[in-house]
Amino acid sequence: MQELLDRHAIHDLLVDYCFYLDSMNLPALAALFTVDCEVIYGADPRLGSQGAAALEDSLERMWRWARTSHHLSNVRLVFPGPDTVDSTSYVLAWHERLDGSSATIYGQYNDRIIRTTAGWRIAERRMFMHGSDGGFAVPIAPLQRRPAPPGWEPPDLEC
Amino acid sequence: MQELLDRHAIHDLLVDYCFYLDSMNLPALAALFTVDCEVIYGADPRLGSQGAAALEDSLERMWRWARTSHHLSNVRLVFPGPDTVDSTSYVLAWHERLDGSSATIYGQYNDRIIRTTAGWRIAERRMFMHGSDGGFAVPIAPLQRRPAPPGWEPPDLEC
Amino acid sequence: MQELLDRHAIHDLLVDYCFYLDSMNLPALAALFTVDCEVIYGADPRLGSQGAAALEDSLERMWRWARTSHHLSNVRLVFPGPDTVDSTSYVLAWHERLDGSSATIYGQYNDRIIRTTAGWRIAERRMFMHGSDGGFAVPIAPLQRRPAPPGWEPPDLEC
Repeated sequence: MQELLDRHAIHDLLVDYCFYLDSMNLPALAALFTVDCEVIYGADPRLGSQGAAALEDSLERMWRWARTSHHLSNVRLVFPGPDTVDSTSYVLAWHERLDGSSATIYGQYNDRIIRTTAGWRIAERRMFMHGSDGGFAVPIAPLQRRPAPPGWEPPDLEC
Repeated sequence: MQELLDRHAIHDLLVDYCFYLDSMNLPALAALFTVDCEVIYGADPRLGSQGAAALEDSLERMWRWARTSHHLSNVRLVFPGPDTVDSTSYVLAWHERLDGSSATIYGQYNDRIIRTTAGWRIAERRMFMHGSDGGFAVPIAPLQRRPAPPGWEPPDLEC
Repeated sequence: MQELLDRHAIHDLLVDYCFYLDSMNLPALAALFTVDCEVIYGADPRLGSQGAAALEDSLERMWRWARTSHHLSNVRLVFPGPDTVDSTSYVLAWHERLDGSSATIYGQYNDRIIRTTAGWRIAERRMFMHGSDGGFAVPIAPLQRRPAPPGWEPPDLEC
């Protein structure tokens, strides 16, 4: 029963991140993370931050988009212990540029989430990108996929 | 335990709306709402309706699209009382025009959902749009986002 | 209580399918199905398979895409009995071609999922497509939608 309640609380935490990011309520967003969190969206140093305060500063970069919409799904939670969760979730993140064009990324968050006295908080977040549309150019880390075996031939099936 | 069961029932209600809209089963869709519901997709009077019967009539407008697909996510439920829920959910709504072109909107539903003797029903629905692709022209109410502080300068990071 | 635990386990099963497909871990994907499963994505014989081993072979066709991203939502579970579930879920499936262009399909899975001694497994999967963008050409079965009544006139509302 406790795990069922925890699952809902953690789902809310993941969804709140999206909502606060899309409404650019960065103080509320930062409060979803532990004070000493590590967040890495990609290898570029500008895409990583140490600590909730640095994350809040770093995500000001999202104002260079006119609007965003972060659609979260495919939430998968594994509990290695009662106070720790390893979370995988998918995100479809739509971004509108100031010129009205848009770019969408399809990716996933890999999080370590922990129970604190104030509730569940994201302690570590890493993002991986499956791909993107619309000329998205930010170097988020690509997801590794198993390659086709040597000699594999595609079927006669149109794309 | 009751709240956990309620959460699943309310999630089903939100998902049923999408399914009935995409299959254009409007009588079944209208039955998800209270008889005296208020539904406002935008300030244009043609985008609002009072009562489930008026909603059913109003949503006939969706037949001007060849097809639609409403992908619901980011469901966030808050219970101000045992028989009332304030629900926020995201929707990615894809629309195909009769000419084969498509338009997608990225937005959210803000609902008041209440427990009735027949089960949970949507009493109030307001929609807000984060943005759109493909030349979507229906004037759905835009979501308000916090603006950048005065003097904010974008980082040197490509879009 | 058992049903609540079952709901989470079945949701995980549906999400694992997406994750294993996007990472092309086909042995792990096939293990989500019963040995004698029936999977039909469309009427074309190359889009159907009988049994988990045949499914694993058949899905090698996904390597003709450079990358995919399967975003699952709108999960709707109905339990006709304690060990059987009828599941409907939506998928937004983004596909990147080798030339860097992309195609997205918007559709739904209709599954029969059963409890086995090893856990919940997909026994039957049928896919229906609401529509697609980007010139997707694989003949997945279209969802049937109710047509407008004879003589219906579209409102004066721009698309």
